[in-house]
Amino acid sequence: MNSFGKHLRLTTFGESHGPAVGGILDGMPSGFRIDREAVQKALDARRPGRSAAMSARNESDKVEFLSGMLEDGTTLGTPIGFIIRNNDCRSADYEALRHVFRPGHADYTYQIKYGVRDHRGGGRASARETASRVVGGAIAAQWLREKFGVTFRTGLTQVGRIKLGTHEDLIKEIERVRMTGDSVGGIVSGEILGLPPGVGEPVGDKFQARLAEAMMSINAAKGFEYGDGFEAAEMTGSESNDGMTVDGGGKVRFLSNHCGGILGGITNGMPVTYRVAFKATPSIALPQMTVSDSGEQREITVTGRHDACVALRAVAVVEAMAALTTADLLMAKR
Amino acid sequence: MNSFGKHLRLTTFGESHGPAVGGILDGMPSGFRIDREAVQKALDARRPGRSAAMSARNESDKVEFLSGMLEDGTTLGTPIGFIIRNNDCRSADYEALRHVFRPGHADYTYQIKYGVRDHRGGGRASARETASRVVGGAIAAQWLREKFGVTFRTGLTQVGRIKLGTHEDLIKEIERVRMTGDSVGGIVSGEILGLPPGVGEPVGDKFQARLAEAMMSINAAKGFEYGDGFEAAEMTGSESNDGMTVDGGGKVRFLSNHCGGILGGITNGMPVTYRVAFKATPSIALPQMTVSDSGEQREITVTGRHDACVALRAVAVVEAMAALTTADLLMAKR
Amino acid sequence: MNSFGKHLRLTTFGESHGPAVGGILDGMPSGFRIDREAVQKALDARRPGRSAAMSARNESDKVEFLSGMLEDGTTLGTPIGFIIRNNDCRSADYEALRHVFRPGHADYTYQIKYGVRDHRGGGRASARETASRVVGGAIAAQWLREKFGVTFRTGLTQVGRIKLGTHEDLIKEIERVRMTGDSVGGIVSGEILGLPPGVGEPVGDKFQARLAEAMMSINAAKGFEYGDGFEAAEMTGSESNDGMTVDGGGKVRFLSNHCGGILGGITNGMPVTYRVAFKATPSIALPQMTVSDSGEQREITVTGRHDACVALRAVAVVEAMAALTTADLLMAKR
Amino acid sequence: MNSFGKHLRLTTFGESHGPAVGGILDGMPSGFRIDREAVQKALDARRPGRSAAMSARNESDKVEFLSGMLEDGTTLGTPIGFIIRNNDCRSADYEALRHVFRPGHADYTYQIKYGVRDHRGGGRASARETASRVVGGAIAAQWLREKFGVTFRTGLTQVGRIKLGTHEDLIKEIERVRMTGDSVGGIVSGEILGLPPGVGEPVGDKFQARLAEAMMSINAAKGFEYGDGFEAAEMTGSESNDGMTVDGGGKVRFLSNHCGGILGGITNGMPVTYRVAFKATPSIALPQMTVSDSGEQREITVTGRHDACVALRAVAVVEAMAALTTADLLMAKR
Repeated sequence: MNSFGKHLRLTTFGESHGPAVGGILDGMPSGFRIDREAVQKALDARRPGRSAAMSARNESDKVEFLSGMLEDGTTLGTPIGFIIRNNDCRSADYEALRHVFRPGHADYTYQIKYGVRDHRGGGRASARETASRVVGGAIAAQWLREKFGVTFRTGLTQVGRIKLGTHEDLIKEIERVRMTGDSVGGIVSGEILGLPPGVGEPVGDKFQARLAEAMMSINAAKGFEYGDGFEAAEMTGSESNDGMTVDGGGKVRFLSNHCGGILGGITNGMPVTYRVAFKATPSIALPQMTVSDSGEQREITVTGRHDACVALRAVAVVEAMAALTTADLLMAKR
Repeated sequence: MNSFGKHLRLTTFGESHGPAVGGILDGMPSGFRIDREAVQKALDARRPGRSAAMSARNESDKVEFLSGMLEDGTTLGTPIGFIIRNNDCRSADYEALRHVFRPGHADYTYQIKYGVRDHRGGGRASARETASRVVGGAIAAQWLREKFGVTFRTGLTQVGRIKLGTHEDLIKEIERVRMTGDSVGGIVSGEILGLPPGVGEPVGDKFQARLAEAMMSINAAKGFEYGDGFEAAEMTGSESNDGMTVDGGGKVRFLSNHCGGILGGITNGMPVTYRVAFKATPSIALPQMTVSDSGEQREITVTGRHDACVALRAVAVVEAMAALTTADLLMAKR
Repeated sequence: MNSFGKHLRLTTFGESHGPAVGGILDGMPSGFRIDREAVQKALDARRPGRSAAMSARNESDKVEFLSGMLEDGTTLGTPIGFIIRNNDCRSADYEALRHVFRPGHADYTYQIKYGVRDHRGGGRASARETASRVVGGAIAAQWLREKFGVTFRTGLTQVGRIKLGTHEDLIKEIERVRMTGDSVGGIVSGEILGLPPGVGEPVGDKFQARLAEAMMSINAAKGFEYGDGFEAAEMTGSESNDGMTVDGGGKVRFLSNHCGGILGGITNGMPVTYRVAFKATPSIALPQMTVSDSGEQREITVTGRHDACVALRAVAVVEAMAALTTADLLMAKR
Repeated sequence: MNSFGKHLRLTTFGESHGPAVGGILDGMPSGFRIDREAVQKALDARRPGRSAAMSARNESDKVEFLSGMLEDGTTLGTPIGFIIRNNDCRSADYEALRHVFRPGHADYTYQIKYGVRDHRGGGRASARETASRVVGGAIAAQWLREKFGVTFRTGLTQVGRIKLGTHEDLIKEIERVRMTGDSVGGIVSGEILGLPPGVGEPVGDKFQARLAEAMMSINAAKGFEYGDGFEAAEMTGSESNDGMTVDGGGKVRFLSNHCGGILGGITNGMPVTYRVAFKATPSIALPQMTVSDSGEQREITVTGRHDACVALRAVAVVEAMAALTTADLLMAKR
């Protein structure tokens, strides 16, 4: 199904080249005033066309709210329906790809699964679907900040083999690869700050399990880790355990945060730290071997407006999914 | 909640030192004959006390089936209830830990979340809960093999920094660390073989998202990746895309499997490959700083029967969760 | 939450006087061609303003599909998003009711539950929400008819104490009551024809339980029964059991249908028969005692455009809910 | 699936003649002390063999709790697993029915749906499954009474055509019918007292919809109504609306309770009143026409230990389902 969350549930719809994408955010408490301009800004942040490192497609991406709030943005406790019209979607660009499976894309698997597919730009599998998640996530993030003081820090921390540079270094690396007609992977790192201890359920809805599911549902995500992550496999217990102490005011404090803010599926009051690995954009301007839907061998070169590093724009989506997951689990906590 | 899956749903119950653990497996089709001895064998495989590298606790772990099948094991299509009695659970071992939070364990977060906790050996947070998952997973795996020819290959592939050795090298490393009073992390790698293309849903139930959730719900798991995983972040699109061809018989073939058998959340017919990182067992015989439940600073040394490398026994649990997830998503496919 | 169904799930949004109502229908199989004009016709059938017996509000009620299908209506297997703009919603009519709780309406309970409410015509509690259900139900009904030969017969069979008359007699009774400034209850009866045996789950998703839930979620519904219903309470086992026989072709036949087509929660191949009781429209032109939101006693007379018998327009909604429930349970059947 | 509820979820398992029935109650808050003797008493109340009007089967029905609580019954916040062994289940009684479909029972529909069935006494379709619901419901009822002051009044109010008599009159009618070899239907009426206003969700989880679903999932239930129920169909708006007033203390009061305590799916603070109709026990000692599983015409007379009026024992189950539903919806209310 096309839903995320149990207490705060976002259901999305929409193909990249149909009339609109959109969604329903169900479960928002009443009496909270949504800053709709801030939601629009979050949506702008994931928009392509903002920098040379991003694709040139000019999506205006205006969110229209259809329900769930009074005219001043105050929530009614009822589901929030919204749509984002698809304006600039030159389907003609995709006509050449109509009968061919792009390597690294979902063209083949959709064809097998559904027998029919929307060949215009990826259809439902397009990253355009994530625009709806950004809208839902921005609302969740506002609510978390105002009601609980929970905030999110999310950023691109690696592009290809460049890990230690500045943001400009990462952007330069993307541009460098784009010039070669190729694309490149990257890593998005996130922190959830201000979470109280006690959030997350112990077996079926562990905080890290729900966060992993949310992140791995993002297009092109290949890996998820929290706390020490894969490095923990190389460490001993005495290295990866976080000792505890009592501070001057009698409050329990952790001496380190190897655990990434979660123990036994439940937050311990430290920042939740995590990382998500993204593969390179599969659309590249270099020739690749592929197959047509009538079973013939083809060579394909994917031209058009594509991000050279999907991880860059994924930052906004990662943060949105973190906010939706956190809000959902906070609501589950009684 | 304490459930996994939507079409095939396993709900588990049980604390490590209560009368029993167990579960209900709901959604198994009727008319399938369960090999109950094979289920018992899968349970034996995760049992502690089998090797020097494992803890010495002697759990007999006999599964008792209470419903859902005829006397010969033929399923009725009704829920399969089962229990595993807790026999050998020297609670006295844990008396010393009654009022102290063990570092790296869920003691503190349970106390905060519930206000009350079962101090006898971890209670619900104990890895003993996974015995129920192994029972459910073994049934799912039997069904998958017989009805679809789907099989699972799962193994320990890294302990600490030892990655390239034989299984004996890994076991030796565990024993070496145990001698020091410490514990060590590891990695479990898995493959799902024989899956048809078309399994997995495109947005809310992507195959990799559900697999990630399942794996990250296992005690001590810190990271999940599939296909090229975190390495994909360092690769270009031309390196990580899998080209396609047509074989002599006119069938579509992938030239490589960087994608790990999944494109757009849907299987493509190649093996699904994934890896799960586990931290070291938090119970170590070395002194650690911690806090008591009355807020006093304490030093703690956790003695008793503990695995030095939780990843070793996690192999059976990883495979069980892979089987449950795969069966659930196969059932979702219409 | 604002969703119905597990395999075919309709989620709706929208207040009566906001920009739009709408929904997402998730789970429709791919490759089915939706007759969108027939969906519009179903929507027209529930529209007010069609007869003297209905309210005069002129809702144009045009459904706009936003996703989930190709241009010719062929489903993609992806979620179907749709909206219906609210055009004619003279909020001014409701200004007088802004601070007063209408008896028999949800004004008071919404105010208590949410602390805020959309006073313009009932908001989310308005029967306008059911327009979205009619859209979803019409699609489900088309699919059921084409793929399984399942059809629905639904009609108004009682208005007030008039049970045995023709449809005109029922309409006349509605008009008669309307002239008095009052409103009147009624009963809608339904049959689901052509269902194969074996649909419905035995404990948690019995066919009659899901049908009851669906019907009792319709505004103003007060009772649900199937087969002999409440009369079965007065009957003996020898009267209410349905004997079985074998016909000339060796097929099992039931000698009667007291059970209403369902035994043990599972269809038996006979028509599913059921009835839903509706109370009178609570909006009446006669004076009633009520209370303002500042806690003062008031007398209220609700003028405006209201149906005198909500059961009349509920026929389309009952059929829609029957179709959604039937499709969902058919999909659950493996 | 075999589950009820979303926040407080009961999943049951078990066939009437297998080793045990039981369930898992998931979602109970921690720190609540369960009176396990009272749970056992609730179970005793539904037990057959208590009166001449009930079947003679002597089920000892001892509930054994396996998890989720400390030794003194204090809940841990973890799932409560429990089993009830099947002791006295003379399968031999059913040998004669092995190949024949009992009219009014689920024998035929199970055979069609599953291809295999447990012929020993109804298997999963047996009312024995409801023992697990009574256990779950008794725990929910204790919690509701202690934490919210919510109580339940539930009773048999009609047997056949006897409605106005005392309880003895109803019991006498059952005995009278039993003597004839036949059985008889009845009605169970319930009230939920002390509920605060604001419980229930407005579209997908209306209080009455969830209550209807719960009641219609009970074996032999044929109809559900709340408030004025089916009589509301015969009433005018001025008769069925409940006027409101303000009492001396400034509190809002309803002048009547035609609505049965629910408006727009949400409780209004008045008692929730409802009625459930049950058909006669289908097992009767009179000859009936039926069919064998090899397709031959047969005459059948069902002997053995059966209740003559299933509604009598259903009282405990109706109350249990009311408690589970109420607790679930109270937990959903934020």
